[in-house]
Amino acid sequence: MIVNMAVGATEAEIDHVVARIKECGYQAHLSRGEERTVIGVVGKGDKHRSELEALLAAPGVEEIIHISHPFKLASRDFHPQGSIVELGKGVTVGATELIVAAGPCAVESAAQINLVAERVAQAGARLLRGGAFKPRTSPYSFQGLGESGLKMMATARAETGLKVVTEVVSPGDVEMVARYADILQLGTRNMQNYALLQEAGRSGKPVLLKRGMSSTVEEWLLAAEYVLSQGNRNVILCERGIRTFETATRFTLDLNAIPLARELSHLPIIVDPSQATGKWSLVRPMALAAVAAGAHGLIVEVHPTPNQALSDGAQSLDFDSFDRLMQDLRRLLGALAKQLA
Amino acid sequence: MIVNMAVGATEAEIDHVVARIKECGYQAHLSRGEERTVIGVVGKGDKHRSELEALLAAPGVEEIIHISHPFKLASRDFHPQGSIVELGKGVTVGATELIVAAGPCAVESAAQINLVAERVAQAGARLLRGGAFKPRTSPYSFQGLGESGLKMMATARAETGLKVVTEVVSPGDVEMVARYADILQLGTRNMQNYALLQEAGRSGKPVLLKRGMSSTVEEWLLAAEYVLSQGNRNVILCERGIRTFETATRFTLDLNAIPLARELSHLPIIVDPSQATGKWSLVRPMALAAVAAGAHGLIVEVHPTPNQALSDGAQSLDFDSFDRLMQDLRRLLGALAKQLA
Amino acid sequence: MIVNMAVGATEAEIDHVVARIKECGYQAHLSRGEERTVIGVVGKGDKHRSELEALLAAPGVEEIIHISHPFKLASRDFHPQGSIVELGKGVTVGATELIVAAGPCAVESAAQINLVAERVAQAGARLLRGGAFKPRTSPYSFQGLGESGLKMMATARAETGLKVVTEVVSPGDVEMVARYADILQLGTRNMQNYALLQEAGRSGKPVLLKRGMSSTVEEWLLAAEYVLSQGNRNVILCERGIRTFETATRFTLDLNAIPLARELSHLPIIVDPSQATGKWSLVRPMALAAVAAGAHGLIVEVHPTPNQALSDGAQSLDFDSFDRLMQDLRRLLGALAKQLA
Amino acid sequence: MIVNMAVGATEAEIDHVVARIKECGYQAHLSRGEERTVIGVVGKGDKHRSELEALLAAPGVEEIIHISHPFKLASRDFHPQGSIVELGKGVTVGATELIVAAGPCAVESAAQINLVAERVAQAGARLLRGGAFKPRTSPYSFQGLGESGLKMMATARAETGLKVVTEVVSPGDVEMVARYADILQLGTRNMQNYALLQEAGRSGKPVLLKRGMSSTVEEWLLAAEYVLSQGNRNVILCERGIRTFETATRFTLDLNAIPLARELSHLPIIVDPSQATGKWSLVRPMALAAVAAGAHGLIVEVHPTPNQALSDGAQSLDFDSFDRLMQDLRRLLGALAKQLA
Repeated sequence: MIVNMAVGATEAEIDHVVARIKECGYQAHLSRGEERTVIGVVGKGDKHRSELEALLAAPGVEEIIHISHPFKLASRDFHPQGSIVELGKGVTVGATELIVAAGPCAVESAAQINLVAERVAQAGARLLRGGAFKPRTSPYSFQGLGESGLKMMATARAETGLKVVTEVVSPGDVEMVARYADILQLGTRNMQNYALLQEAGRSGKPVLLKRGMSSTVEEWLLAAEYVLSQGNRNVILCERGIRTFETATRFTLDLNAIPLARELSHLPIIVDPSQATGKWSLVRPMALAAVAAGAHGLIVEVHPTPNQALSDGAQSLDFDSFDRLMQDLRRLLGALAKQLA
Repeated sequence: MIVNMAVGATEAEIDHVVARIKECGYQAHLSRGEERTVIGVVGKGDKHRSELEALLAAPGVEEIIHISHPFKLASRDFHPQGSIVELGKGVTVGATELIVAAGPCAVESAAQINLVAERVAQAGARLLRGGAFKPRTSPYSFQGLGESGLKMMATARAETGLKVVTEVVSPGDVEMVARYADILQLGTRNMQNYALLQEAGRSGKPVLLKRGMSSTVEEWLLAAEYVLSQGNRNVILCERGIRTFETATRFTLDLNAIPLARELSHLPIIVDPSQATGKWSLVRPMALAAVAAGAHGLIVEVHPTPNQALSDGAQSLDFDSFDRLMQDLRRLLGALAKQLA
Repeated sequence: MIVNMAVGATEAEIDHVVARIKECGYQAHLSRGEERTVIGVVGKGDKHRSELEALLAAPGVEEIIHISHPFKLASRDFHPQGSIVELGKGVTVGATELIVAAGPCAVESAAQINLVAERVAQAGARLLRGGAFKPRTSPYSFQGLGESGLKMMATARAETGLKVVTEVVSPGDVEMVARYADILQLGTRNMQNYALLQEAGRSGKPVLLKRGMSSTVEEWLLAAEYVLSQGNRNVILCERGIRTFETATRFTLDLNAIPLARELSHLPIIVDPSQATGKWSLVRPMALAAVAAGAHGLIVEVHPTPNQALSDGAQSLDFDSFDRLMQDLRRLLGALAKQLA
Repeated sequence: MIVNMAVGATEAEIDHVVARIKECGYQAHLSRGEERTVIGVVGKGDKHRSELEALLAAPGVEEIIHISHPFKLASRDFHPQGSIVELGKGVTVGATELIVAAGPCAVESAAQINLVAERVAQAGARLLRGGAFKPRTSPYSFQGLGESGLKMMATARAETGLKVVTEVVSPGDVEMVARYADILQLGTRNMQNYALLQEAGRSGKPVLLKRGMSSTVEEWLLAAEYVLSQGNRNVILCERGIRTFETATRFTLDLNAIPLARELSHLPIIVDPSQATGKWSLVRPMALAAVAAGAHGLIVEVHPTPNQALSDGAQSLDFDSFDRLMQDLRRLLGALAKQLA
């Protein structure tokens, strides 16, 4: 941490800052320039980080600058090799095999989820996605089938061998959802729902952590840190678009975040092109782009009849479009010396 | 809702859309221009809104446009007079009296909260703010004192007569927090935590609903709708800054939202200039600006020694600055034909 | 400037950075922490700032952090007293008197501009605004009357004594526009049109510099620096809303920028609530808020019949609304110990 | 265009809107719902679009909604086949061959530009990029070599056969820059510099139009319309990152814009991963992603010694990294049934 004193800060103001740094258990290194003095804070640990930030309220202080990342367990410095997360017998994410999760936005019926599961498994998906608890912007929208939806997904798993990934929205539901799901999904609106992050962490299940729609990559890795610090190392990041001024697409898919997160962190990272674009015709090109940028997997919305879906129909692929996507992915992976999981 | 067909959409495509609109229980009004056909959807209720949105995936459809607001109970159309929310004997928000909440970011000790409560009460505040459960970006930051912090606030209330507003972060904590607090605060990171919104709604307590840092005003009113639809009419909106590209301030205070929300909704609205700016020297001018823009109240961070605070010291006022702010507010309110609560 | 070396940077990498810093004429101060080494760059001047930034490409370097502001002449460090800019005989901006500019988005006819000028002068405005060269998003929109519009404004000035502020969009037009205008307005789309900034600087005329819709306050002050560095000290900043994810208003008025820019810079600053909101009913509350936040002036769109305006009718006040605004401003200024210019 | 009347709008208010629509030469289609009336505006042309927008200021009007795109010549409706732009003998962009432009941010010397030109030509680039007129945020940064830089590029062209693409920043310079350049680049800060767009249009030279850092895709296509409407059909779009809240990268590369712009427009589109990321290590993955998303070309910064560059060194590739990128691109293009130009 660096404390940037204002031009014209007095010696007494500088002394006060130095004293406070020492009180918090760190050392202070002064660097006096022609215009201003800069104070480096050196020492171990982040325990008093917030207290030092309060120095911004001290007279003569202009700015506090952080020079180390606040995440630890999520950091590549901590774990230089990329993590490979096990999702079930023989299914992993993080190595050179691309994992594909596919399925409807919401589970609507047993018939629907069984049909989708069968078809996406044939096409090469290894995970079945589907929402039973849906966080909806409006209280009047379809909110999902709840536990009966989870049961339908478990049945579809039994018939296809796909692993199940599904969202949990409340700490009180974690245990129940974990009974049916192979991977717990934490959605964009809950990325900073710390009670939920910690409960999901304690479950021990792999956690798919979607990026908050207005979260920086640093905040996202700090959210992962909440899960990791519960002793659960099975965290998968998922970029799903951020909110920007552009409204022609539902969100702006931030693929810069793929190589960036891979530099900063050892955690595997997948991409959701359906949520990110909101428009099915953009899903295929953005899925290919995500893989070319280095994503370890994809999560894609697929529905038997998108234009009659109960939610997110506009961004869902039908079976033919999904088949075509999988064929294109196979060709692309060949060129990247990778393959489908 | 309006379905904007693409240039060159066929009659069969138009017929399909019309048929689907009727299946969902609405009427379709066609308007054929020289370039394209536009289909108006007329009928009561929003029940099938999501299903109609899926028409975006139907061939020949270019765009779906909403022409009514999706919120109902929060809407000024529903309740043309502004709502006045009762916060306790004789203390209300929403009328012509300005309500001020003040206190530390986090409760740190009984001595601290008592001292602050006494001083802000003297200066004219009617509500005591203070965090016992702190949602922190990093798991390594101070997370609050929990229930013992709530007890300290309840003691300070007994001594000063201030009403207590404090944050709740998990549905499982609502009942407990409601035993100590007069007003439940739902924070920016939880604005779309629907399980929490509903639980807070069921408590019957007044709810202070902070705007999500990347939420539109429409999404904010839909979040309020989750509380209102539980039968709890005591919702107070709180603008606290949105996330933009500007990093010189912590957030961008969106004061446009004050008159805008007052046009769209009957709910009272207050402003948090501390969170919004992140810098104590900007708090006073932005507090005055918020009141001039029509805010019904303010929530301000005050700390005995900001530069030693355990959290958010940089944006906290000390007692002298708070006194000065209250004096300036009194003068300003006179010019606006209002007064302090 | 601070060079933050990566964890695990080698001695050779550190030596390379130190050598490069010295080559560029600065001194290097090393601070070795337990995790990483941080190198402070100390010395005078910014001449080699860009070259030092290239060190980010050097092996072992993680981050380059700036600790001083890149603007000089615009800085309050350079000129601790606030600047007062003279706009014509006895009319200034930057002192305790509030200056109001009013007029139509675009000059449409001599009759229109004369009528508006007369009415806003009666109501207390001191400046007449009006566009003759309009930068329009679409090439098919009304582009303004050009020089004949300028002549109409000059005539209206002769009859009312108002000073004229009008936009110039091309370096080749500066000389001509300066013959008619008292103040040259540089619009939001041209804030980083450096050829235009320099030409406007050379004209010697007061320059009203609107903030770029996606510019930080720092970039805005650097744009001012382009004008100032031509020897023209008469720069007035104008906050007019920034682009964010919120689409219910045309832009998001960033009033945080008022006290912030006043801390960082000595330049006077005014606010345009018409452009910022895009909705006439929000103009009055946001104008009052701007003044409460410390703005030195306002620029407001006024039209005789807003719903028939050739451009920006939706955000224009009619005469009655403008009269009411001016009355409210007088009351507000009294409470702030200020007055109308 | 659709006029959405407020709930409770009176018959007189509706009649006024209908009358005004007819005055402007359009027809009005009324659709009366249970809650509100919606008025469709039908007719040819956009001439009175701005005047109709002013109806937002009419009593009883809640919202004005556009249902057709305001761009015409740039629209795929106007030109269903994708355009192929000729850049010089046998070099085109827009077909199935990928075009690569490479070179330094700024021309620094004849030796530098010759060396870079030779090496990038060997590696497979067909265009040489390099800035002679640099729009720099600070007036104190290196501003480019001006015309002598252009001469150096022309010499490098003569020796390598590469076509030259370089930025022009002022309408007065267009003629001179066009004497040396094969393609005129209009930068992100000038995307809405309409005088410059029109002058570049009149030059007849191919125009590389970078997206404004805060411009929507619609505004970008309207900027292209300014060039096209001068009779110049040789416009190439260039996505170069947009400004968002994320600061870990310089900008957020919006690859959604590639398939989206290809749906809306017939113009070819290329991507600049150097500007978009600001970090050389992200350039390779994002270049590959751009091509997988359907980009017709790339423009990449290459410098002999990035860590000593006079500008943008941090985001420049050295020769080895560029060679590796070109090899990876060849493999990728094979999988996409494309090839290098």
